[in-house]
Amino acid sequence: MSPMIDRICIIGVGLIGGSLARALKVTGACKEIVGTSRYPDHLKKAKQLNVIDRFETDMSIAVKNADIVVVCVPVGAVDDVFESLAACVSENTIITDVGSTKRSVTMSANKLLGQYSRNFVPAHPIAGREKSGVEASSADLFRQRRVIITPTDNTQKNAINVVQSMWEKTGAEVVQMDASHHDDVLAATSHLPHLLAYALVDTLSQLDEKNEIFNYAAGGFRDFTRIASSDATMWHDICLSNSNAILTALEIFSSDLKKLEQALREKNSQYILGVFQRAKKSRDTFCNE
Amino acid sequence: MSPMIDRICIIGVGLIGGSLARALKVTGACKEIVGTSRYPDHLKKAKQLNVIDRFETDMSIAVKNADIVVVCVPVGAVDDVFESLAACVSENTIITDVGSTKRSVTMSANKLLGQYSRNFVPAHPIAGREKSGVEASSADLFRQRRVIITPTDNTQKNAINVVQSMWEKTGAEVVQMDASHHDDVLAATSHLPHLLAYALVDTLSQLDEKNEIFNYAAGGFRDFTRIASSDATMWHDICLSNSNAILTALEIFSSDLKKLEQALREKNSQYILGVFQRAKKSRDTFCNE
Repeated sequence: MSPMIDRICIIGVGLIGGSLARALKVTGACKEIVGTSRYPDHLKKAKQLNVIDRFETDMSIAVKNADIVVVCVPVGAVDDVFESLAACVSENTIITDVGSTKRSVTMSANKLLGQYSRNFVPAHPIAGREKSGVEASSADLFRQRRVIITPTDNTQKNAINVVQSMWEKTGAEVVQMDASHHDDVLAATSHLPHLLAYALVDTLSQLDEKNEIFNYAAGGFRDFTRIASSDATMWHDICLSNSNAILTALEIFSSDLKKLEQALREKNSQYILGVFQRAKKSRDTFCNE
Repeated sequence: MSPMIDRICIIGVGLIGGSLARALKVTGACKEIVGTSRYPDHLKKAKQLNVIDRFETDMSIAVKNADIVVVCVPVGAVDDVFESLAACVSENTIITDVGSTKRSVTMSANKLLGQYSRNFVPAHPIAGREKSGVEASSADLFRQRRVIITPTDNTQKNAINVVQSMWEKTGAEVVQMDASHHDDVLAATSHLPHLLAYALVDTLSQLDEKNEIFNYAAGGFRDFTRIASSDATMWHDICLSNSNAILTALEIFSSDLKKLEQALREKNSQYILGVFQRAKKSRDTFCNE
Protein backbone atom coordinates (compact mmCIF):
# COMPACT_ATOMS: atom_id res chain seq x y z
CA MET A 1 0.00 0.00 0.00
CA SER A 2 1.41 3.37 -0.94
CA PRO A 3 0.72 6.10 1.62
CA MET A 4 -2.22 8.44 1.13
CA ILE A 5 -1.42 11.78 -0.49
CA ASP A 6 -2.43 14.78 1.62
CA ARG A 7 -2.95 17.37 -1.06
CA ILE A 8 -2.81 17.48 -4.83
CA CYS A 9 -3.15 20.68 -6.79
CA ILE A 10 -4.49 20.37 -10.32
CA ILE A 11 -3.75 23.29 -12.61
CA GLY A 12 -6.38 23.25 -15.37
CA VAL A 13 -9.43 21.20 -14.46
CA GLY A 14 -10.66 20.02 -17.87
CA LEU A 15 -11.16 16.52 -19.29
CA ILE A 16 -7.80 15.15 -18.12
CA GLY A 17 -7.35 17.13 -14.90
CA GLY A 18 -10.96 16.48 -13.95
CA SER A 19 -10.72 12.75 -14.70
CA LEU A 20 -7.54 12.49 -12.62
CA ALA A 21 -9.25 14.27 -9.72
CA ARG A 22 -12.29 12.00 -9.96
CA ALA A 23 -10.16 8.85 -10.11
CA LEU A 24 -8.10 9.88 -7.06
CA LYS A 25 -11.22 10.76 -5.09
CA VAL A 26 -13.00 7.52 -5.97
CA THR A 27 -10.06 5.43 -4.80
CA GLY A 28 -9.51 7.57 -1.69
CA ALA A 29 -5.90 8.09 -2.74
CA CYS A 30 -5.81 11.76 -1.78
CA LYS A 31 -7.20 13.71 1.17
CA GLU A 32 -7.69 17.02 -0.62
CA ILE A 33 -7.74 18.05 -4.25
CA VAL A 34 -7.33 21.75 -4.98
CA GLY A 35 -8.05 23.14 -8.43
CA THR A 36 -6.71 26.28 -10.03
CA SER A 37 -7.07 27.75 -13.51
CA ARG A 38 -7.03 30.92 -15.55
CA TYR A 39 -10.73 30.34 -16.05
CA PRO A 40 -12.78 30.80 -12.85
CA ASP A 41 -15.85 29.37 -14.63
CA HIS A 42 -14.07 26.04 -15.11
CA LEU A 43 -13.23 25.95 -11.41
CA LYS A 44 -16.78 26.75 -10.33
CA LYS A 45 -18.11 24.03 -12.59
CA ALA A 46 -15.57 21.53 -11.23
CA LYS A 47 -16.47 22.34 -7.64
CA GLN A 48 -20.16 22.17 -8.46
CA LEU A 49 -19.66 18.69 -9.95
CA ASN A 50 -17.73 17.72 -6.82
CA VAL A 51 -14.67 16.92 -8.92
CA ILE A 52 -12.40 19.04 -6.70
CA ASP A 53 -12.62 19.79 -2.97
CA ARG A 54 -11.87 23.50 -3.33
CA PHE A 55 -10.42 25.96 -5.79
CA GLU A 56 -8.19 28.99 -5.68
CA THR A 57 -7.91 31.46 -8.54
CA ASP A 58 -4.49 32.54 -7.20
CA MET A 59 -1.98 29.84 -8.15
CA SER A 60 0.41 30.70 -5.33
CA ILE A 61 -2.33 29.96 -2.80
CA ALA A 62 -3.51 26.88 -4.67
CA VAL A 63 -0.10 25.16 -4.67
CA LYS A 64 0.62 25.89 -1.01
CA ASN A 65 1.51 22.71 0.88
CA ALA A 66 0.62 20.55 -2.11
CA ASP A 67 2.49 17.22 -2.27
CA ILE A 68 1.99 17.08 -6.02
CA VAL A 69 1.15 19.75 -8.57
CA VAL A 70 -0.29 18.34 -11.80
CA VAL A 71 -0.15 20.70 -14.77
CA CYS A 72 -3.16 19.85 -16.98
CA VAL A 73 -3.20 22.79 -19.40
CA PRO A 74 -2.79 22.67 -23.20
CA VAL A 75 0.86 22.25 -24.18
CA GLY A 76 0.94 25.83 -25.49
CA ALA A 77 0.10 27.20 -22.03
CA VAL A 78 2.70 25.16 -20.12
CA ASP A 79 5.42 27.84 -20.28
CA ASP A 80 3.27 30.42 -18.54
CA VAL A 81 2.37 27.93 -15.83
CA PHE A 82 6.01 26.94 -15.27
CA GLU A 83 7.02 30.59 -14.96
CA SER A 84 4.33 31.18 -12.35
CA LEU A 85 5.16 27.96 -10.52
CA ALA A 86 8.87 28.83 -10.29
CA ALA A 87 7.88 31.87 -8.25
CA CYS A 88 5.59 30.14 -5.79
CA VAL A 89 6.16 26.38 -5.52
CA SER A 90 7.94 24.90 -2.51
CA GLU A 91 11.08 22.80 -2.92
CA ASN A 92 9.34 19.70 -1.56
CA THR A 93 6.49 19.79 -4.04
CA ILE A 94 6.57 17.28 -6.86
CA ILE A 95 5.50 18.66 -10.22
CA THR A 96 4.18 16.65 -13.15
CA ASP A 97 2.17 17.26 -16.31
CA VAL A 98 -0.11 15.42 -18.75
CA GLY A 99 0.97 16.94 -22.07
CA SER A 100 0.88 14.95 -25.30
CA THR A 101 4.42 16.02 -26.23
CA LYS A 102 7.38 15.53 -23.93
CA ARG A 103 10.53 16.99 -25.55
CA SER A 104 9.34 20.59 -25.55
CA VAL A 105 7.75 20.33 -22.10
CA THR A 106 10.99 18.94 -20.65
CA MET A 107 13.01 21.73 -22.24
CA SER A 108 10.59 24.31 -20.85
CA ALA A 109 10.83 22.76 -17.39
CA ASN A 110 14.63 22.82 -17.46
CA LYS A 111 14.61 26.42 -18.56
CA LEU A 112 11.75 27.84 -16.50
CA LEU A 113 11.50 25.76 -13.33
CA GLY A 114 15.13 26.33 -12.39
CA GLN A 115 16.09 24.39 -9.24
CA TYR A 116 12.60 22.82 -9.18
CA SER A 117 13.16 21.07 -12.49
CA ARG A 118 14.58 18.12 -10.52
CA ASN A 119 11.11 17.74 -8.99
CA PHE A 120 9.41 17.66 -12.40
CA VAL A 121 8.31 14.30 -13.83
CA PRO A 122 7.11 14.66 -17.45
CA ALA A 123 4.08 12.36 -17.95
CA HIS A 124 1.50 11.60 -20.60
CA PRO A 125 -1.62 9.54 -19.98
CA ILE A 126 -2.59 7.86 -23.27
CA ALA A 127 -6.27 8.45 -22.85
CA GLY A 128 -8.72 11.01 -24.05
CA ARG A 129 -12.00 11.69 -25.72
CA GLU A 130 -13.11 13.96 -28.50
CA LYS A 131 -15.20 15.80 -25.90
CA SER A 132 -13.41 18.30 -23.68
CA GLY A 133 -14.02 20.11 -20.42
CA VAL A 134 -14.65 18.93 -16.89
CA GLU A 135 -18.21 17.91 -17.82
CA ALA A 136 -16.71 15.15 -19.98
CA SER A 137 -14.37 13.90 -17.25
CA SER A 138 -14.68 10.41 -15.82
CA ALA A 139 -13.04 8.46 -12.99
CA ASP A 140 -12.55 5.54 -15.38
CA LEU A 141 -10.74 7.43 -18.15
CA PHE A 142 -7.32 6.00 -17.28
CA ARG A 143 -8.39 2.51 -16.30
CA GLN A 144 -6.35 -0.06 -18.26
CA ARG A 145 -4.70 2.77 -20.20
CA ARG A 146 -1.01 3.48 -20.30
CA VAL A 147 0.73 6.50 -18.80
CA ILE A 148 4.16 7.21 -20.25
CA ILE A 149 6.61 9.02 -17.97
CA THR A 150 9.82 10.41 -19.44
CA PRO A 151 12.17 11.32 -16.57
CA THR A 152 15.65 12.67 -17.33
CA ASP A 153 18.90 11.76 -15.52
CA ASN A 154 18.29 14.87 -13.47
CA THR A 155 14.83 13.84 -12.19
CA GLN A 156 14.63 12.90 -8.50
CA LYS A 157 13.95 9.20 -7.94
CA ASN A 158 11.42 9.90 -5.22
CA ALA A 159 9.44 12.20 -7.52
CA ILE A 160 9.31 9.45 -10.16
CA ASN A 161 8.00 6.96 -7.60
CA VAL A 162 5.32 9.30 -6.29
CA VAL A 163 4.03 10.19 -9.77
CA GLN A 164 4.08 6.55 -10.85
CA SER A 165 2.13 5.57 -7.73
CA MET A 166 -0.42 8.35 -8.30
CA TRP A 167 -1.17 7.14 -11.81
CA GLU A 168 -1.33 3.50 -10.79
CA LYS A 169 -4.10 4.44 -8.37
CA THR A 170 -6.22 5.55 -11.35
CA GLY A 171 -6.00 2.05 -12.81
CA ALA A 172 -3.35 2.94 -15.38
CA GLU A 173 -0.17 1.08 -16.24
CA VAL A 174 2.91 3.31 -16.05
CA VAL A 175 5.80 2.85 -18.47
CA GLN A 176 9.02 4.84 -18.81
CA MET A 177 10.72 5.93 -22.00
CA ASP A 178 12.93 8.64 -23.37
CA ALA A 179 11.11 11.90 -24.23
CA SER A 180 12.35 11.88 -27.84
CA HIS A 181 11.21 8.34 -28.37
CA HIS A 182 7.83 9.18 -26.86
CA ASP A 183 7.41 12.08 -29.26
CA ASP A 184 8.34 9.98 -32.30
CA VAL A 185 5.94 7.18 -31.38
CA LEU A 186 3.07 9.53 -30.53
CA ALA A 187 3.64 11.56 -33.71
CA ALA A 188 2.92 8.41 -35.70
CA THR A 189 0.11 6.94 -33.67
CA SER A 190 -1.75 10.02 -32.50
CA HIS A 191 -0.59 13.39 -33.80
CA LEU A 192 -0.48 12.46 -37.51
CA PRO A 193 -3.93 10.80 -37.45
CA HIS A 194 -5.39 13.92 -35.84
CA LEU A 195 -3.74 16.10 -38.49
CA LEU A 196 -5.14 13.89 -41.28
CA ALA A 197 -8.63 13.81 -39.81
CA TYR A 198 -8.75 17.59 -39.40
CA ALA A 199 -7.34 18.05 -42.92
CA LEU A 200 -9.87 15.72 -44.55
CA VAL A 201 -12.91 17.21 -42.83
CA ASP A 202 -11.70 20.70 -43.68
CA THR A 203 -11.18 19.73 -47.33
CA LEU A 204 -14.64 18.17 -47.59
CA SER A 205 -16.32 21.06 -45.82
CA GLN A 206 -15.07 23.40 -48.51
CA LEU A 207 -16.39 21.39 -51.46
CA ASP A 208 -19.57 22.59 -53.18
CA GLU A 209 -21.42 19.38 -52.36
CA LYS A 210 -20.41 19.50 -48.70
CA ASN A 211 -23.94 19.14 -47.38
CA GLU A 212 -24.55 16.05 -49.45
CA ILE A 213 -21.16 14.62 -48.58
CA PHE A 214 -21.84 14.81 -44.87
CA ASN A 215 -25.45 13.67 -45.36
CA TYR A 216 -24.35 10.44 -46.98
CA ALA A 217 -21.59 9.77 -44.49
CA ALA A 218 -21.91 6.35 -42.90
CA GLY A 219 -20.55 4.95 -39.65
CA GLY A 220 -17.10 4.47 -41.13
CA PHE A 221 -16.79 8.17 -41.86
CA ARG A 222 -18.03 9.10 -38.40
CA ASP A 223 -15.39 6.84 -36.82
CA PHE A 224 -12.62 8.03 -39.13
CA THR A 225 -13.30 11.68 -38.44
CA ARG A 226 -14.25 11.47 -34.74
CA ILE A 227 -10.86 12.87 -33.66
CA ALA A 228 -11.53 15.96 -35.80
CA SER A 229 -14.08 16.90 -33.12
CA SER A 230 -11.26 17.15 -30.57
CA ASP A 231 -10.31 20.49 -29.04
CA ALA A 232 -8.76 22.55 -31.85
CA THR A 233 -6.51 24.73 -29.68
CA MET A 234 -5.11 21.77 -27.80
CA TRP A 235 -4.23 19.94 -31.00
CA HIS A 236 -2.82 23.09 -32.59
CA ASP A 237 -0.49 23.33 -29.57
CA ILE A 238 0.51 19.67 -29.82
CA CYS A 239 1.23 19.89 -33.54
CA LEU A 240 3.41 22.97 -33.15
CA SER A 241 5.15 21.51 -30.11
CA ASN A 242 6.03 18.26 -31.89
CA SER A 243 6.23 19.54 -35.45
CA ASN A 244 9.55 17.91 -36.36
CA ALA A 245 8.48 14.39 -35.48
CA ILE A 246 5.05 14.92 -37.09
CA LEU A 247 6.64 16.25 -40.28
CA THR A 248 8.91 13.20 -40.43
CA ALA A 249 5.96 10.84 -40.07
CA LEU A 250 3.92 12.89 -42.55
CA GLU A 251 6.69 12.75 -45.15
CA ILE A 252 6.81 8.95 -44.97
CA PHE A 253 3.03 8.74 -45.16
CA SER A 254 2.79 11.21 -48.07
CA SER A 255 5.40 9.29 -50.00
CA ASP A 256 3.52 6.02 -49.48
CA LEU A 257 0.23 7.71 -50.37
CA LYS A 258 1.79 9.03 -53.58
CA LYS A 259 2.73 5.47 -54.54
CA LEU A 260 -0.80 4.29 -53.83
CA GLU A 261 -2.19 7.17 -55.91
CA GLN A 262 0.09 6.17 -58.78
CA ALA A 263 -1.04 2.55 -58.46
CA LEU A 264 -4.67 3.69 -58.62
CA ARG A 265 -3.90 5.77 -61.71
CA GLU A 266 -2.27 2.77 -63.39
CA LYS A 267 -4.97 0.41 -62.06
CA ASN A 268 -2.21 -1.65 -60.48
CA SER A 269 -4.51 -4.15 -58.85
CA GLN A 270 -1.80 -6.17 -57.09
CA TYR A 271 -0.21 -3.14 -55.47
CA ILE A 272 -3.50 -1.79 -54.14
CA LEU A 273 -4.61 -5.18 -52.85
CA GLY A 274 -1.20 -5.63 -51.19
CA VAL A 275 -1.50 -2.35 -49.26
CA PHE A 276 -5.09 -3.05 -48.19
CA GLN A 277 -4.35 -6.65 -47.13
CA ARG A 278 -1.24 -5.74 -45.15
CA ALA A 279 -3.09 -2.89 -43.43
CA LYS A 280 -6.09 -5.04 -42.55
CA LYS A 281 -3.82 -7.75 -41.19
CA SER A 282 -1.87 -5.28 -39.04
CA ARG A 283 -4.93 -3.60 -37.67
CA ASP A 284 -6.73 -6.87 -36.97
CA THR A 285 -3.62 -8.03 -35.10
CA PHE A 286 -3.04 -4.89 -33.06
CA CYS A 287 -6.54 -3.54 -32.47
CA ASN A 288 -9.31 -5.84 -31.40
CA GLU A 289 -12.16 -3.37 -31.82
CA MET B 1 -49.25 -1.56 -47.58
CA SER B 2 -47.09 -2.86 -50.39
CA PRO B 3 -47.84 -6.47 -51.41
CA MET B 4 -45.75 -9.31 -50.04
CA ILE B 5 -42.92 -10.51 -52.27
CA ASP B 6 -43.10 -14.21 -53.10
CA ARG B 7 -39.47 -14.96 -53.72
CA ILE B 8 -36.19 -13.06 -53.54
CA CYS B 9 -32.91 -14.52 -54.69
CA ILE B 10 -29.79 -13.13 -53.06
CA ILE B 11 -26.54 -13.71 -54.94
CA GLY B 12 -23.70 -13.53 -52.40
CA VAL B 13 -24.91 -13.97 -48.83
CA GLY B 14 -22.31 -11.95 -46.86
CA LEU B 15 -22.69 -8.98 -44.55
CA ILE B 16 -24.99 -6.97 -46.85
CA GLY B 17 -26.87 -9.82 -48.54
CA GLY B 18 -27.31 -11.55 -45.18
CA SER B 19 -28.51 -8.40 -43.46
CA LEU B 20 -31.03 -7.75 -46.24
CA ALA B 21 -32.31 -11.33 -45.95
CA ARG B 22 -32.64 -11.03 -42.17
CA ALA B 23 -34.42 -7.67 -42.39
CA LEU B 24 -36.93 -8.98 -44.95
CA LYS B 25 -37.59 -12.11 -42.91
CA VAL B 26 -38.06 -10.19 -39.66
CA THR B 27 -40.63 -7.89 -41.26
CA GLY B 28 -42.37 -10.75 -43.08
CA ALA B 29 -41.91 -8.85 -46.34
CA CYS B 30 -40.99 -11.92 -48.37
CA LYS B 31 -42.30 -15.49 -48.45
CA GLU B 32 -39.08 -17.19 -49.52
CA ILE B 33 -35.46 -16.10 -49.65
CA VAL B 34 -33.15 -18.19 -51.79
CA GLY B 35 -29.38 -17.78 -51.56
CA THR B 36 -26.75 -18.58 -54.14
CA SER B 37 -23.00 -18.03 -54.25
CA ARG B 38 -19.74 -19.25 -55.70
CA TYR B 39 -18.88 -20.33 -52.17
CA PRO B 40 -21.01 -23.26 -50.94
CA ASP B 41 -19.58 -22.79 -47.43
CA HIS B 42 -21.12 -19.32 -47.23
CA LEU B 43 -24.48 -20.73 -48.25
CA LYS B 44 -24.36 -23.55 -45.70
CA LYS B 45 -23.49 -21.08 -42.97
CA ALA B 46 -26.33 -18.76 -44.04
CA LYS B 47 -28.84 -21.60 -44.01
CA GLN B 48 -27.54 -22.83 -40.67
CA LEU B 49 -28.02 -19.34 -39.21
CA ASN B 50 -31.54 -19.31 -40.67
CA VAL B 51 -30.70 -16.20 -42.70
CA ILE B 52 -32.00 -17.79 -45.93
CA ASP B 53 -34.79 -20.33 -46.46
CA ARG B 54 -32.84 -22.44 -48.93
CA PHE B 55 -29.83 -22.26 -51.19
CA GLU B 56 -28.88 -23.42 -54.64
CA THR B 57 -25.31 -23.60 -55.85
CA ASP B 58 -26.58 -23.43 -59.44
CA MET B 59 -27.53 -19.82 -60.17
CA SER B 60 -30.01 -20.74 -62.91
CA ILE B 61 -32.01 -22.81 -60.42
CA ALA B 62 -31.65 -20.20 -57.67
CA VAL B 63 -33.12 -17.35 -59.73
CA LYS B 64 -36.06 -19.41 -61.05
CA ASN B 65 -39.38 -17.66 -60.37
CA ALA B 66 -37.68 -15.00 -58.27
CA ASP B 67 -39.50 -11.67 -58.20
CA ILE B 68 -36.28 -9.88 -57.35
CA VAL B 69 -32.65 -10.91 -57.74
CA VAL B 70 -30.30 -8.92 -55.50
CA VAL B 71 -26.64 -9.01 -56.54
CA CYS B 72 -24.59 -8.72 -53.31
CA VAL B 73 -21.10 -9.61 -54.53
CA PRO B 74 -17.99 -7.40 -54.45
CA VAL B 75 -18.03 -4.85 -57.28
CA GLY B 76 -15.21 -6.71 -59.06
CA ALA B 77 -17.34 -9.86 -59.33
CA VAL B 78 -20.46 -8.15 -60.72
CA ASP B 79 -19.53 -8.67 -64.38
CA ASP B 80 -19.36 -12.44 -63.98
CA VAL B 81 -22.72 -12.46 -62.22
CA PHE B 82 -24.37 -10.30 -64.90
CA GLU B 83 -23.06 -12.61 -67.64
CA SER B 84 -24.48 -15.62 -65.87
CA LEU B 85 -27.76 -13.86 -65.14
CA ALA B 86 -28.24 -12.83 -68.75
CA ALA B 87 -28.35 -16.51 -69.63
CA CYS B 88 -30.86 -17.64 -67.02
CA VAL B 89 -33.01 -14.82 -65.65
CA SER B 90 -36.63 -14.44 -66.71
CA GLU B 91 -37.90 -11.26 -68.32
CA ASN B 92 -40.22 -10.55 -65.39
CA THR B 93 -37.51 -10.68 -62.76
CA ILE B 94 -36.34 -7.40 -61.31
CA ILE B 95 -32.58 -7.18 -60.78
CA THR B 96 -30.79 -4.88 -58.35
CA ASP B 97 -27.42 -4.67 -56.63
CA VAL B 98 -25.79 -3.20 -53.52
CA GLY B 99 -22.42 -2.07 -54.91
CA SER B 100 -20.61 0.96 -53.51
CA THR B 101 -19.96 2.35 -57.00
CA LYS B 102 -22.70 2.94 -59.51
CA ARG B 103 -21.21 4.24 -62.79
CA SER B 104 -19.27 1.08 -63.58
CA VAL B 105 -22.04 -1.26 -62.43
CA THR B 106 -24.55 0.55 -64.63
CA MET B 107 -22.23 0.32 -67.62
CA SER B 108 -21.73 -3.39 -66.98
CA ALA B 109 -25.47 -3.93 -66.74
CA ASN B 110 -26.11 -2.13 -70.01
CA LYS B 111 -23.44 -4.17 -71.72
CA LEU B 112 -23.96 -7.60 -70.18
CA LEU B 113 -27.63 -7.85 -69.21
CA GLY B 114 -28.84 -6.98 -72.69
CA GLN B 115 -32.65 -6.77 -72.84
CA TYR B 116 -32.82 -7.31 -69.05
CA SER B 117 -30.91 -4.12 -68.32
CA ARG B 118 -34.30 -2.33 -68.24
CA ASN B 119 -35.15 -4.49 -65.23
CA PHE B 120 -31.95 -3.51 -63.43
CA VAL B 121 -32.13 -0.89 -60.65
CA PRO B 122 -28.65 0.14 -59.45
CA ALA B 123 -28.74 0.60 -55.67
CA HIS B 124 -26.34 1.26 -52.80
CA PRO B 125 -27.28 0.92 -49.14
CA ILE B 126 -25.09 3.36 -47.15
CA ALA B 127 -24.46 0.95 -44.34
CA GLY B 128 -21.75 -1.44 -43.42
CA ARG B 129 -19.38 -2.64 -40.79
CA GLU B 130 -15.69 -3.40 -40.72
CA LYS B 131 -16.61 -7.03 -40.11
CA SER B 132 -17.64 -9.09 -43.10
CA GLY B 133 -19.45 -12.33 -43.78
CA VAL B 134 -22.94 -13.58 -42.99
CA GLU B 135 -21.95 -14.06 -39.32
CA ALA B 136 -21.71 -10.27 -39.02
CA SER B 137 -25.10 -9.67 -40.66
CA SER B 138 -27.94 -8.03 -38.77
CA ALA B 139 -31.61 -7.31 -39.44
CA ASP B 140 -31.05 -3.76 -38.17
CA LEU B 141 -28.12 -2.83 -40.41
CA PHE B 142 -30.21 -0.63 -42.71
CA ARG B 143 -32.54 0.87 -40.13
CA GLN B 144 -32.48 4.68 -40.39
CA ARG B 145 -29.77 4.43 -43.05
CA ARG B 146 -30.02 5.72 -46.58
CA VAL B 147 -30.20 3.64 -49.74
CA ILE B 148 -29.28 5.50 -52.91
CA ILE B 149 -30.80 4.21 -56.14
CA THR B 150 -29.48 5.49 -59.45
CA PRO B 151 -31.93 4.48 -62.18
CA THR B 152 -31.31 5.54 -65.79
CA ASP B 153 -33.90 6.82 -68.30
CA ASN B 154 -34.04 3.26 -69.54
CA THR B 155 -34.98 1.72 -66.17
CA GLN B 156 -38.54 0.40 -65.85
CA LYS B 157 -40.66 2.46 -63.47
CA ASN B 158 -42.21 -0.64 -61.91
CA ALA B 159 -38.75 -2.05 -61.16
CA ILE B 160 -37.79 1.18 -59.41
CA ASN B 161 -40.94 1.05 -57.27
CA VAL B 162 -40.43 -2.58 -56.28
CA VAL B 163 -36.78 -2.06 -55.29
CA GLN B 164 -37.61 1.13 -53.39
CA SER B 165 -40.39 -0.67 -51.51
CA MET B 166 -38.09 -3.61 -50.68
CA TRP B 167 -35.51 -1.30 -49.08
CA GLU B 168 -38.10 0.71 -47.22
CA LYS B 169 -39.19 -2.52 -45.54
CA THR B 170 -35.71 -2.81 -43.99
CA GLY B 171 -36.20 0.56 -42.28
CA ALA B 172 -34.05 2.49 -44.76
CA GLU B 173 -34.83 5.78 -46.48
CA VAL B 174 -34.50 5.55 -50.26
CA VAL B 175 -33.20 8.50 -52.27
CA GLN B 176 -32.56 8.79 -56.00
CA MET B 177 -29.63 10.42 -57.71
CA ASP B 178 -27.56 10.25 -60.84
CA ALA B 179 -24.91 7.47 -60.85
CA SER B 180 -22.07 9.91 -61.56
CA HIS B 181 -23.12 12.19 -58.76
CA HIS B 182 -23.37 9.20 -56.42
CA ASP B 183 -19.85 8.15 -57.28
CA ASP B 184 -18.42 11.64 -56.72
CA VAL B 185 -20.10 12.04 -53.34
CA LEU B 186 -19.16 8.56 -52.16
CA ALA B 187 -15.57 8.98 -53.35
CA ALA B 188 -15.24 11.91 -50.96
CA THR B 189 -17.17 10.59 -48.01
CA SER B 190 -16.35 6.90 -48.07
CA HIS B 191 -13.83 5.70 -50.65
CA LEU B 192 -11.12 8.29 -49.93
CA PRO B 193 -11.31 7.80 -46.12
CA HIS B 194 -10.93 4.05 -46.62
CA LEU B 195 -7.91 4.61 -48.88
CA LEU B 196 -6.32 6.94 -46.31
CA ALA B 197 -6.96 4.59 -43.39
CA TYR B 198 -5.48 1.61 -45.26
CA ALA B 199 -2.51 3.74 -46.36
CA LEU B 200 -1.75 5.03 -42.87
CA VAL B 201 -1.94 1.63 -41.18
CA ASP B 202 0.25 0.13 -43.90
CA THR B 203 2.81 2.94 -43.50
CA LEU B 204 2.93 2.53 -39.72
CA SER B 205 3.11 -1.25 -39.91
CA GLN B 206 6.31 -0.95 -41.91
CA LEU B 207 8.13 1.32 -39.47
CA ASP B 208 10.75 -0.19 -37.18
CA GLU B 209 8.86 0.82 -34.05
CA LYS B 210 5.60 -0.65 -35.34
CA ASN B 211 4.96 -2.76 -32.25
CA GLU B 212 5.35 0.21 -29.97
CA ILE B 213 3.31 2.42 -32.23
CA PHE B 214 0.35 0.08 -32.09
CA ASN B 215 0.88 -0.60 -28.37
CA TYR B 216 0.53 3.06 -27.52
CA ALA B 217 -2.44 3.60 -29.79
CA ALA B 218 -5.38 5.12 -27.94
CA GLY B 219 -9.09 5.12 -28.71
CA GLY B 220 -8.72 7.87 -31.29
CA PHE B 221 -6.37 5.76 -33.37
CA ARG B 222 -8.66 2.74 -33.09
CA ASP B 223 -11.59 4.81 -34.35
CA PHE B 224 -9.57 6.47 -37.11
CA THR B 225 -8.28 3.16 -38.46
CA ARG B 226 -11.37 1.00 -37.88
CA ILE B 227 -12.26 1.07 -41.60
CA ALA B 228 -8.81 -0.39 -42.38
CA SER B 229 -10.16 -3.63 -40.93
CA SER B 230 -12.76 -3.75 -43.71
CA ASP B 231 -12.66 -6.47 -46.37
CA ALA B 232 -9.55 -5.76 -48.47
CA THR B 233 -10.78 -7.35 -51.70
CA MET B 234 -14.09 -5.53 -51.58
CA TRP B 235 -12.38 -2.16 -51.11
CA HIS B 236 -9.78 -2.94 -53.76
CA ASP B 237 -12.67 -3.54 -56.16
CA ILE B 238 -14.41 -0.31 -55.13
CA CYS B 239 -11.25 1.78 -55.55
CA LEU B 240 -10.52 0.41 -59.00
CA SER B 241 -14.14 0.75 -60.03
CA ASN B 242 -14.36 4.41 -58.97
CA SER B 243 -10.73 5.38 -59.47
CA ASN B 244 -11.36 8.60 -61.39
CA ALA B 245 -13.61 10.16 -58.77
CA ILE B 246 -11.34 8.97 -55.96
CA LEU B 247 -8.26 10.41 -57.68
CA THR B 248 -10.02 13.75 -58.07
CA ALA B 249 -10.91 13.85 -54.37
CA LEU B 250 -7.43 12.65 -53.42
CA GLU B 251 -5.79 15.42 -55.47
CA ILE B 252 -7.78 18.10 -53.68
CA PHE B 253 -7.01 16.53 -50.30
CA SER B 254 -3.30 16.11 -51.08
CA SER B 255 -3.03 19.72 -52.17
CA ASP B 256 -4.71 20.90 -48.93
CA LEU B 257 -2.52 18.55 -46.88
CA LYS B 258 0.57 19.98 -48.58
CA LYS B 259 -0.48 23.47 -47.50
CA LEU B 260 -1.00 22.27 -43.94
CA GLU B 261 2.42 20.58 -44.01
CA GLN B 262 3.97 23.84 -45.18
CA ALA B 263 2.20 25.73 -42.40
CA LEU B 264 3.54 23.25 -39.86
CA ARG B 265 7.05 23.68 -41.27
CA GLU B 266 6.74 27.45 -40.98
CA LYS B 267 5.00 27.20 -37.60
CA ASN B 268 2.13 29.19 -39.08
CA SER B 269 -0.04 29.05 -36.00
CA GLN B 270 -3.02 30.91 -37.46
CA TYR B 271 -3.27 28.68 -40.53
CA ILE B 272 -3.13 25.46 -38.50
CA LEU B 273 -5.65 26.70 -35.96
CA GLY B 274 -7.93 27.83 -38.81
CA VAL B 275 -7.96 24.36 -40.41
CA PHE B 276 -8.55 22.60 -37.08
CA GLN B 277 -11.30 24.99 -35.99
CA ARG B 278 -13.15 24.83 -39.32
CA ALA B 279 -12.91 21.04 -39.32
CA LYS B 280 -14.13 20.70 -35.75
CA LYS B 281 -17.03 23.03 -36.44
CA SER B 282 -18.04 21.11 -39.59
CA ARG B 283 -17.83 17.75 -37.94
CA ASP B 284 -19.68 18.86 -34.82
CA THR B 285 -22.41 20.25 -37.07
CA PHE B 286 -22.78 17.25 -39.32
CA CYS B 287 -21.99 14.28 -37.09
CA ASN B 288 -23.47 14.06 -33.64
CA GLU B 289 -21.39 11.12 -32.40
